[in-house]
Amino acid sequence: MLQGLSVDSSGPSFTPLVVVELVSDAKEETIGWLLNKIRDQQHDGGAELLVEQLGPGVGAQEKENPNLFLVGATWQRLLSGAEDVGLFKESTDGSMRAFTCANKHNFKDFGGDGDGFLSMAECQYIIKHELDTLRAKDETHVPGYKQAKLYPGKSIIRRLLSKRILIQIFPLHDKEELKRLSFSWYKKVKLSLQPLDDIRHYYGEGQALYFGFLEYFTFALVPMALFGVPYYLFDWEDYDKYVVFAVFNLIWCTVILELWKRCSASLAYRWGTLSRKKAFEEPRPGFHGVLGFNPVTGREEPLYPNIKRQLRIYLVSLPFVLLCLYLSFCVMMVYFLMEGWALSVYDQEPTFWTGVLLFIPSIIYAVVIEAMNLIYRYAAEFLTEWENHRLESSYQNHLVLKVLVVSVNYYFNFLQNISLATLLITSQILNQFMEAFLPYWLQRRRNKKMIRKVQKRRILEDKELPLAEQVRLEADMSTYLGTFDDYLELFLLFGYVSLFSCVYPLAAVLVVLNNVTEVYSDAFKMCHVFKRPFSDPAANIGVWQLAFEAMSVIAVVTNFALIGLSPQVKTYFSDSETHLILWTVAAEHGLMAFKFILTFLIPDIPKHIQIKLARLEFESLEALKKKVKTLTVFSL
Amino acid sequence: MLQGLSVDSSGPSFTPLVVVELVSDAKEETIGWLLNKIRDQQHDGGAELLVEQLGPGVGAQEKENPNLFLVGATWQRLLSGAEDVGLFKESTDGSMRAFTCANKHNFKDFGGDGDGFLSMAECQYIIKHELDTLRAKDETHVPGYKQAKLYPGKSIIRRLLSKRILIQIFPLHDKEELKRLSFSWYKKVKLSLQPLDDIRHYYGEGQALYFGFLEYFTFALVPMALFGVPYYLFDWEDYDKYVVFAVFNLIWCTVILELWKRCSASLAYRWGTLSRKKAFEEPRPGFHGVLGFNPVTGREEPLYPNIKRQLRIYLVSLPFVLLCLYLSFCVMMVYFLMEGWALSVYDQEPTFWTGVLLFIPSIIYAVVIEAMNLIYRYAAEFLTEWENHRLESSYQNHLVLKVLVVSVNYYFNFLQNISLATLLITSQILNQFMEAFLPYWLQRRRNKKMIRKVQKRRILEDKELPLAEQVRLEADMSTYLGTFDDYLELFLLFGYVSLFSCVYPLAAVLVVLNNVTEVYSDAFKMCHVFKRPFSDPAANIGVWQLAFEAMSVIAVVTNFALIGLSPQVKTYFSDSETHLILWTVAAEHGLMAFKFILTFLIPDIPKHIQIKLARLEFESLEALKKKVKTLTVFSL
Repeated sequence: MLQGLSVDSSGPSFTPLVVVELVSDAKEETIGWLLNKIRDQQHDGGAELLVEQLGPGVGAQEKENPNLFLVGATWQRLLSGAEDVGLFKESTDGSMRAFTCANKHNFKDFGGDGDGFLSMAECQYIIKHELDTLRAKDETHVPGYKQAKLYPGKSIIRRLLSKRILIQIFPLHDKEELKRLSFSWYKKVKLSLQPLDDIRHYYGEGQALYFGFLEYFTFALVPMALFGVPYYLFDWEDYDKYVVFAVFNLIWCTVILELWKRCSASLAYRWGTLSRKKAFEEPRPGFHGVLGFNPVTGREEPLYPNIKRQLRIYLVSLPFVLLCLYLSFCVMMVYFLMEGWALSVYDQEPTFWTGVLLFIPSIIYAVVIEAMNLIYRYAAEFLTEWENHRLESSYQNHLVLKVLVVSVNYYFNFLQNISLATLLITSQILNQFMEAFLPYWLQRRRNKKMIRKVQKRRILEDKELPLAEQVRLEADMSTYLGTFDDYLELFLLFGYVSLFSCVYPLAAVLVVLNNVTEVYSDAFKMCHVFKRPFSDPAANIGVWQLAFEAMSVIAVVTNFALIGLSPQVKTYFSDSETHLILWTVAAEHGLMAFKFILTFLIPDIPKHIQIKLARLEFESLEALKKKVKTLTVFSL
Repeated sequence: MLQGLSVDSSGPSFTPLVVVELVSDAKEETIGWLLNKIRDQQHDGGAELLVEQLGPGVGAQEKENPNLFLVGATWQRLLSGAEDVGLFKESTDGSMRAFTCANKHNFKDFGGDGDGFLSMAECQYIIKHELDTLRAKDETHVPGYKQAKLYPGKSIIRRLLSKRILIQIFPLHDKEELKRLSFSWYKKVKLSLQPLDDIRHYYGEGQALYFGFLEYFTFALVPMALFGVPYYLFDWEDYDKYVVFAVFNLIWCTVILELWKRCSASLAYRWGTLSRKKAFEEPRPGFHGVLGFNPVTGREEPLYPNIKRQLRIYLVSLPFVLLCLYLSFCVMMVYFLMEGWALSVYDQEPTFWTGVLLFIPSIIYAVVIEAMNLIYRYAAEFLTEWENHRLESSYQNHLVLKVLVVSVNYYFNFLQNISLATLLITSQILNQFMEAFLPYWLQRRRNKKMIRKVQKRRILEDKELPLAEQVRLEADMSTYLGTFDDYLELFLLFGYVSLFSCVYPLAAVLVVLNNVTEVYSDAFKMCHVFKRPFSDPAANIGVWQLAFEAMSVIAVVTNFALIGLSPQVKTYFSDSETHLILWTVAAEHGLMAFKFILTFLIPDIPKHIQIKLARLEFESLEALKKKVKTLTVFSL
């Protein structure tokens, strides 16, 4: 695992895991101070890690940044770090336990020489954690930068990042492993599932859960797609089938979301993140406030009154979001007016040019909505930043909420024209290829240039780049910004499937097709376009579970509204409109109640994992009791 | 605290806390074995408690049970027991922490001589826990009773209880403290609140939370009562006010239930049950199955396959409950037919006797429904027992669910005749007095007889009964069966208030009145009618929170249905019935969504308690890290 690369400069040889890039004009004084901090013993407040400056590349140019540093650690340091971050590993009895150095020999695969016990992604995560928790002692500012204030307990790395002295920290790819992973992931034509364990091994739990969810979601939609195809092909407009299909879809949506929780719990248990305790979360780099003492840790850090944040949320952000919603309604109304006008012009004088005019409103509308969404996205990010959340997780949740509320826009587009929807979904498939392959092509050109440059100087063996070039290439790759946009895309697709399933049975088919290509394009992006991301020890898909569930509740309402509006159902209740509405509402309430009962009845964690968790809990209680008994002998 | 009573027989003097009553014909061999188990050292598998046989009372008769045993413990034993049960106590820095003997001096009020640190209720709870966890070693049956099988790890007390060799275990009252408590609770005419801390001190957290909820609920209904009175008095039938009142009620119900969670968390934190870890739950005494190994504890115990239980629940209990619901609808239909017939007879021939006939259907219906409820209650208990739940908590939840589903009966009675409802609620107030004072009067007679008997033999000082008589008196008191019926009563009342608030504004007023008397009658019952119950370290009101919340959701539906049906609203939408229904449904959905958002926005635990909990969590993580660091020095 750890022999992939090795520094060939002088000094003690170690496996570089993480790259720290400082600005090219960083002061000597600052660099020295930071490197000392990283190297210092832990009881002196250092991180006790190994660090080396990256040597100049072959044919180094003036513009090349010399301040790239490779960080690694000794095997012992990594083990104690694993304990610090609360890593869960499989023990010899098959259960997942928090790793402790004292019990290290009770863990499976623990060889003693470090081979294969910690994955490279885990090692990189540990190093990131240790760097993140490097704290200022009595420095009042970063040496060399008077304006970069420090106070006791402030995370040094976060301050350097927020003052832009530190450009980036990123983990290195492992070319060998990446080749193996990408082969089993997307290169072979296969009927098998994605190698989730390998993905987790290389990218961490957050990424693996995303791909797991993508795969699960795709398979879960297959029954709906199979049901939907005959509806589309034979144009079944029979009342009974109509309602049956909608009810099946709604219950199915609930069931798959509930079962996903169980799947996700199984995966998270196997990967050791289910019962792992998260370390106390540091404030995000952008967070600011008046210095004070954190009531939880007792450490000095900026504090920002919660009431102020609440006021900003409820008095500024909330009205803004509602205003945007209202605006998008207005735009839609204008669109309807325009379309009506274009139609009337065409009716009066049906020529070629008036025929072209018919398309104008749709095009204008599409452009305006796309532009508005783009602006809104920036505004949402700005507002969420301005709300000044202390935690990254809270920032993310508020951003997701803002983006989702206004995502209804997409569905209004849909409602006006269903054939447009087919176009929308298929265009997403094209979009994927653009997203994945255009940057890849650019990346490849850069890569080739680098290889040619190196080849000019010396003969390349194995066509492999030397470390210095490899690191510089990776430093230039784009940064993966997290799973937000990937989940958002899935969420919007889920909306098409669930909200309008009864009038648009083809949605599931298209989404399944889209997802299959999505797997490939996302896998390709992860392996070739982006810098390796740090792994994220996620235990579930977080706020997205809630978002999908909320969507499935709203879907009950929209589906029954559509059923009530459909001409087939109307003719069935032709004698009394009141009866029609009452029956629809009653059925909707009944299904909603059934949905909630179902959610309640399906346990979120599979029984066998519940038992394993209960056993750990029981053992720790018993251990406590025993410890107590021994201690009381001494203390009483 | 602990000086209230003291055994005046020979042997080492100790404070008796708990009484164990065996059947009067229990074999000597069994008694000796049990007493040895209780007295044995812990490392020999005993409970290390003190136990004495209760001497014969003054004027002992033949029929008096000689097998009453008093159990107590040394101060050290109680402390180590407190650690066993995971008791939380206030530490000197003001936070609640799990008590450990090693850190005992860091706890507030720890005097060293044991005075006032542990309350009597806590001591009794500890003793109960230690008795409950007395386990068989290699006995195959209870000595003297071949049919009472034992296996290694079986709780001895539970086996003795299930084989009816042990009649009961109950904690003793503390006359002094009870007098003080009852004075501050209900004897003084006061405007102050209930002494919740004292109640908790004497009866434990479960009881105190019930009385806390009762008080909270009463105060929370006051605004609704104040709004409701003018509606009733002036017969406001204005459309706007009508809807405004209903909407206010619905939102108010949501808000008070959410705020109660916060109140309850505050109380539970103060009482140390919020983050207290429950010990692994033992199977309930009635649970049976094939001997096997519990997958969690690894101990031998009866196992019953979950699938069998699920089958019993879904194939027998669920159809039975639905059948009962259907039956009660049928009965209601028959009632309507009968009433229609009686009315037609009266219309044809309006004499005195046909006038009397008018009342017959209502009376028959009331009697039948009451009888059916009684039978159903027994059936529900029988079925839940038959479902063979392993845990008491799971048994309780399934019982509550069954009883609640059929409680809709009460509300159908209500719908047919609103003036009847006034009668129903007021009759509950009378009911309370009957429940509380009739048994009290009987109890008092027994008490007086006992005093007279004792007085015949010797002169009584201070009019206090000697211990032996006191214990025998308490053993004869009725057993408090838990808060189930008390909560059920509150739940039904909450239903009247929330489900029909817009057509019956007086409900809140009556419920407030009822609750005020309920506090007094319940307090009186607890102090004078029942044996002292063991305290129950509850952190919340459990399944009842869910039940109340479900009721508040159903209330949104019923209220909007009633609004839609009301003539005032109908005249407002006189042009189109469709519009009326659509508006009503839209408003209902809007309010429902608002309700859920509100539930989501109000945090369940107040901020200051969240911070305290986070601090404890953080400290334990830091402590772990420090321990890790010290250990790694040795192990690496």
